[in-house]
Amino acid sequence: MKENEKLPDVQSSQPPAHFKLTRVGVTKVKKLVHVKRPDAESVITLPTTLDIFVDLPASQKGSHMSRNLELTTEIVETSKTKPVPDLETFCAEIAGSLLDKHDYATFAEVKAKADYFLGRKTPSGREEIEPYKLIAEARAERDGKIRKLIGVEAVGMTTCPCAMEVIRALTGNKKSVAVPTHNQRNISTLMIEVPGDSTVVEANDLIDIVEHAFSSPTYGMLKRRDEGELVLKAHENPKFVEDVVRDILASVLKRYGNLPDDTIVIARSESEESIHKHNAFAERVTTLGELKK
Amino acid sequence: MKENEKLPDVQSSQPPAHFKLTRVGVTKVKKLVHVKRPDAESVITLPTTLDIFVDLPASQKGSHMSRNLELTTEIVETSKTKPVPDLETFCAEIAGSLLDKHDYATFAEVKAKADYFLGRKTPSGREEIEPYKLIAEARAERDGKIRKLIGVEAVGMTTCPCAMEVIRALTGNKKSVAVPTHNQRNISTLMIEVPGDSTVVEANDLIDIVEHAFSSPTYGMLKRRDEGELVLKAHENPKFVEDVVRDILASVLKRYGNLPDDTIVIARSESEESIHKHNAFAERVTTLGELKK
Amino acid sequence: MKENEKLPDVQSSQPPAHFKLTRVGVTKVKKLVHVKRPDAESVITLPTTLDIFVDLPASQKGSHMSRNLELTTEIVETSKTKPVPDLETFCAEIAGSLLDKHDYATFAEVKAKADYFLGRKTPSGREEIEPYKLIAEARAERDGKIRKLIGVEAVGMTTCPCAMEVIRALTGNKKSVAVPTHNQRNISTLMIEVPGDSTVVEANDLIDIVEHAFSSPTYGMLKRRDEGELVLKAHENPKFVEDVVRDILASVLKRYGNLPDDTIVIARSESEESIHKHNAFAERVTTLGELKK
Amino acid sequence: MKENEKLPDVQSSQPPAHFKLTRVGVTKVKKLVHVKRPDAESVITLPTTLDIFVDLPASQKGSHMSRNLELTTEIVETSKTKPVPDLETFCAEIAGSLLDKHDYATFAEVKAKADYFLGRKTPSGREEIEPYKLIAEARAERDGKIRKLIGVEAVGMTTCPCAMEVIRALTGNKKSVAVPTHNQRNISTLMIEVPGDSTVVEANDLIDIVEHAFSSPTYGMLKRRDEGELVLKAHENPKFVEDVVRDILASVLKRYGNLPDDTIVIARSESEESIHKHNAFAERVTTLGELKK
Repeated sequence: MKENEKLPDVQSSQPPAHFKLTRVGVTKVKKLVHVKRPDAESVITLPTTLDIFVDLPASQKGSHMSRNLELTTEIVETSKTKPVPDLETFCAEIAGSLLDKHDYATFAEVKAKADYFLGRKTPSGREEIEPYKLIAEARAERDGKIRKLIGVEAVGMTTCPCAMEVIRALTGNKKSVAVPTHNQRNISTLMIEVPGDSTVVEANDLIDIVEHAFSSPTYGMLKRRDEGELVLKAHENPKFVEDVVRDILASVLKRYGNLPDDTIVIARSESEESIHKHNAFAERVTTLGELKK
Repeated sequence: MKENEKLPDVQSSQPPAHFKLTRVGVTKVKKLVHVKRPDAESVITLPTTLDIFVDLPASQKGSHMSRNLELTTEIVETSKTKPVPDLETFCAEIAGSLLDKHDYATFAEVKAKADYFLGRKTPSGREEIEPYKLIAEARAERDGKIRKLIGVEAVGMTTCPCAMEVIRALTGNKKSVAVPTHNQRNISTLMIEVPGDSTVVEANDLIDIVEHAFSSPTYGMLKRRDEGELVLKAHENPKFVEDVVRDILASVLKRYGNLPDDTIVIARSESEESIHKHNAFAERVTTLGELKK
Repeated sequence: MKENEKLPDVQSSQPPAHFKLTRVGVTKVKKLVHVKRPDAESVITLPTTLDIFVDLPASQKGSHMSRNLELTTEIVETSKTKPVPDLETFCAEIAGSLLDKHDYATFAEVKAKADYFLGRKTPSGREEIEPYKLIAEARAERDGKIRKLIGVEAVGMTTCPCAMEVIRALTGNKKSVAVPTHNQRNISTLMIEVPGDSTVVEANDLIDIVEHAFSSPTYGMLKRRDEGELVLKAHENPKFVEDVVRDILASVLKRYGNLPDDTIVIARSESEESIHKHNAFAERVTTLGELKK
Repeated sequence: MKENEKLPDVQSSQPPAHFKLTRVGVTKVKKLVHVKRPDAESVITLPTTLDIFVDLPASQKGSHMSRNLELTTEIVETSKTKPVPDLETFCAEIAGSLLDKHDYATFAEVKAKADYFLGRKTPSGREEIEPYKLIAEARAERDGKIRKLIGVEAVGMTTCPCAMEVIRALTGNKKSVAVPTHNQRNISTLMIEVPGDSTVVEANDLIDIVEHAFSSPTYGMLKRRDEGELVLKAHENPKFVEDVVRDILASVLKRYGNLPDDTIVIARSESEESIHKHNAFAERVTTLGELKK
């Protein structure tokens, strides 16, 4: 008896309640994806967590979720010998295949998140490998159109401009004197839509953009002098979460302003406030066209 | 010197980068909210986690986030002597006040999540208090319009219809014999928009709707016979996550079909698959009008 | 047929592999516990998450876990009309009952964690309700001995003494001038064993002790002046995580030094470093007797 | 001016409160570790999260935490060109170096956790890469002794023997007929101490041991027939969490019984119960010598 032959296909039967569903699929799928950037010497492996969805018409009881896994496994398997160029292309490939395998679906959506490490230089020039997150998304529609986004999540430091000015007022210190303020761990995200088969957007560049928007990047390892200089520098560059998001947007516009006006841009910044038990948050969800206005 | 007198207002200054922001505010704010349902005898206290946002125009450097906290604290404080009728009204009150306090904002958004406990009866009639989550949201716009949603998150059990039929085929058992299948913990959410000052939507009813959509509700305490009967009953009622969402939608339509067509409805179901390391997921984000089509 | 009559008791059968087990039970049980402190006017309800264990001899296949839930439900139910005096007594009551119900067990262990709110005054005298966690544990042994611990988790702020001195050296500023340093959100825990039926240890006092050990407590709501003064004060009181733990221990010794020498004391402090992506951590697990040495 | 020359060493000063500390260090450090097993063809990279501690005498204010990072960075850096043989050796190397760098410490402790992927065969023989966690620990003492442990965390499926027998009683079905029961996702952990420089304990073998102790392993991808057969097989092999732990212990004793009697063994199993909102849990913390009794 052949695989699945004569076995009941419950998913394809009529559902008792006739409603279409917006998203049906699998979440928290873990795969090891092999990636090689066009200009990189070696392959890196990304332990990636995936969410994989299609929509479902009212006439069908269930989505064949095992197909989502089957095609993902195949694409991952292929990446071992022929690495994918980037995580967003990997997502786009899955999204495209989903529409082939689920002929009842009108769109497919794939989201990926992976640990990522990148070489950085501390203020004193010491080499460090710092941890980040890569985020990718792809959305395929029945007309063949696939939109894909690449993004990064980075951790840095923000020093509060408001408390700094208040303390300057309270202490009577001049602008030339560094005064204290509260500062905290900040987690910021930048996602940008990537056109067709272009390599114009590099995740490493997005990390640069985000880290430049902090009061200061942070590092795994800082000797005493490094630490003192980093803190002083961060105090010369105080930032609200609002400033972090806007400075990210300004860099995006400068660097990627030539991309199409409908290019999606998402920037988000959250500070784990040291003077509060809650967080401060800012975000902008927009397009390049809107940013140019 | 009066509070804040002459102290610098950095937030109101011009930002270096001129972009408006979609959402600015505070997240993970914890407050103890005092709630009394119109028909309830006593006040309950809900330990609530809040996200509180407004938008920010391009011309202003920072949002005055302390105002978010100030007005929330006041509303919470007032709830001690004059309890709020429900969590969504609480959110709507904050959202409305946000627009009063932030005259530069065009909208305000408040999200709340709280632990909630409700009395249930196990199959054998034993009384149990079961844990749930309440979820509420409100969004106020400058024209005075406030939309609010109430929702619940409940944990139950799903038994897989597909594996059940396959096993029936493999074992040759008739429909009358209970056959094994995989079953798992399922977490489902239902949110629905609540019209004006109506009490037509009760969180307890939403919990009923969600629990009826599972293969079976679950209980903190089951004696041996209870457990056996619950498992058998769940196997007479196999459900995909797709079925759970659709059965929730059918109940919503039946019970709340008379609400306006633009009433927002969100239903979501996620199964922590026992045969996989990943989850199965289904959702519908829609309006009552769409559901009626 | 009576409940459970003639139904198989699989747990009591012989296991295939004969090994005793250290801990068997249930985790993440959620209950709403009614608490009334002897000196309090009103009852508070604590949404509490419980872990409930006994040990299991080599000769028995399974622990009757439903008994854990049954007796916990009963004790919770009773707390509705006759509130428990505190969370550690609640745990101790469960632990004692566990040994009654599991006659094969030699010890029982119960752990509880609950959201807790307490009134505080901000620097400018404004009243605020701040969020904390209560932690309780009890361990009962066959000889009738029950040990119980009460603890608290609080969030505060630490300013780094090291970077402060380095920056003083780098900038040449005198001791009288407030210089910047990095500061961050800190989460600290204090647990202490509570003797017999004494009310000598109050959770609210433990929160006081922990908050005094921070560079500064933090508040949900701070107006501009409050914020500036709090930051300045925190910079006059720089603390390593090591200092936080030691200052907690010193307060414990001062306040509870008259308790027995074998009284367990656990103090722990973790800073979400603003200049690093990782945390700084310190802890002491000890007894009062050891602390007195 | 040389690095750190003349800069104040606040850590080495006298603390205001004189208490020694049990553990001082850094947590949630993320590093990319290069590992090559002696018998493996290629190097794998493990994104690893580390906790790194030493103790601190009463006479010293602070631990020099940057040293923890400095030596860890060096060992990670070296692993790029000369990969470490395994995660526990990596931890042991850090622990040993910690005592060299912190001459005031009497012991050092390092804990590591990493995503790990391993090739498996589904029931129908399909190749799959499944996700696991590697866990390693090392503890070095001043006398030169270093103890190290390797462990794994795996996700599988358990079917409940109790509900199965109760349902058999309720339905009157014979032993030869497969009856339903509740089944759920289970997460189990096995850790074992590794002697000196031996390669006698392989993480892959520990994964085998844990997966054999489940009612059934689980897979990312199962076609309909695979799924049916896996579920049936799991129902022929019902297991309590207690059984999972004991079967792990039996395999450990069989395979590693020749290791020294003081070899630490930790086995733990947690089921996300499908009929309850809480989890079932069992563990044994012991030595090989105890297991042999």
